[in-house]
Amino acid sequence: MSFSPLTLRLIESLTCLPGVGPKSAQRMALHLLDRDRVGAQKLADSLQLAMEKIGRCQRCRNFSEETVCHTCRQTSRDPALLCVVETPADVIAIDQSGSFRGYYFLLLGHLSPIDGIGPEDIGADVLDERLAEGEVKELVIATGTTVEGEATAHYLSEMARRHNVVASRIAHGVPMGGELEYVDSNTLSLALQGRKIL
Amino acid sequence: MSFSPLTLRLIESLTCLPGVGPKSAQRMALHLLDRDRVGAQKLADSLQLAMEKIGRCQRCRNFSEETVCHTCRQTSRDPALLCVVETPADVIAIDQSGSFRGYYFLLLGHLSPIDGIGPEDIGADVLDERLAEGEVKELVIATGTTVEGEATAHYLSEMARRHNVVASRIAHGVPMGGELEYVDSNTLSLALQGRKIL
Repeated sequence: MSFSPLTLRLIESLTCLPGVGPKSAQRMALHLLDRDRVGAQKLADSLQLAMEKIGRCQRCRNFSEETVCHTCRQTSRDPALLCVVETPADVIAIDQSGSFRGYYFLLLGHLSPIDGIGPEDIGADVLDERLAEGEVKELVIATGTTVEGEATAHYLSEMARRHNVVASRIAHGVPMGGELEYVDSNTLSLALQGRKIL
Repeated sequence: MSFSPLTLRLIESLTCLPGVGPKSAQRMALHLLDRDRVGAQKLADSLQLAMEKIGRCQRCRNFSEETVCHTCRQTSRDPALLCVVETPADVIAIDQSGSFRGYYFLLLGHLSPIDGIGPEDIGADVLDERLAEGEVKELVIATGTTVEGEATAHYLSEMARRHNVVASRIAHGVPMGGELEYVDSNTLSLALQGRKIL
């Protein structure tokens, strides 16, 4: 005796979600089948649509269903300031702190030679072109405070120097080893104000 | 600044999963977009297919894409024994204990007048017809050991009596207040062997 083939398939598919093991997946599948078929159908549609339509913004590499994302199209921002972050969640966190009014650039990771992640994997070539345009005057580097994040910051500051762009690093108000997206707005605000020229 | 509309929609849809709040949903969405688009597509298809095809077995009320499920079609089981459980996960748990070779009937809940859950919501009418067929000689009641589970067991034993069917209750080797699906196979095996005639 076991679950029906389609139920098993659903349980197995749910384990692709981070932090969801076989037991959680089973609970989720039975919950959806028993109590929330409307929600499950909506989730299926959202997933389908998201995977079909969401690509990356040409300018900042953030996830977007448009060629150039909403943030990059905002004209109210200061084009002289470009903030480099690792993830989309970091963009949200920094914007919510209210202390940064420039544009963003997403690495979607950090340099990690041990995992085979080199400059091209974090979009260094795209950033290089962006800096060559000459509009950016200061590159605010907000990569994580991990060893890899620091190494990436160093790499990016060298790149900025080649383009005669000032490179700054958000201040170490952010706890060492912590993840940016979980830091509160005040701390992030202080970190942005206390940024130092490299 | 916020996520793109489709990303937001995906995040919001993911919160229909039990135990998933806005922050987890955000992590899941970004993980799928960034690192597991194949898994996400598969999940979308599985959800779609499951919600479209999976209904309830006519005989046992378990989730199944067939009118009568695989377990109810097995001829190797003893038709004189019918085990009543609350959830599909309970069926798996009891079958894995290897101490029961009869058929199952799923309540998909328990009597709870305070939540407006009456006999018809737990399929009491379907069970009544099943017992009226005359094939079942013993009704093994394996509802939970909660107050509602015990009340349901009492209700079902009365129904069995009306049909001259022996009603038994799995032994209280199962810890009081515990959930059946988390009990280990040995305990469940003991509980089944030690069942008492009501």
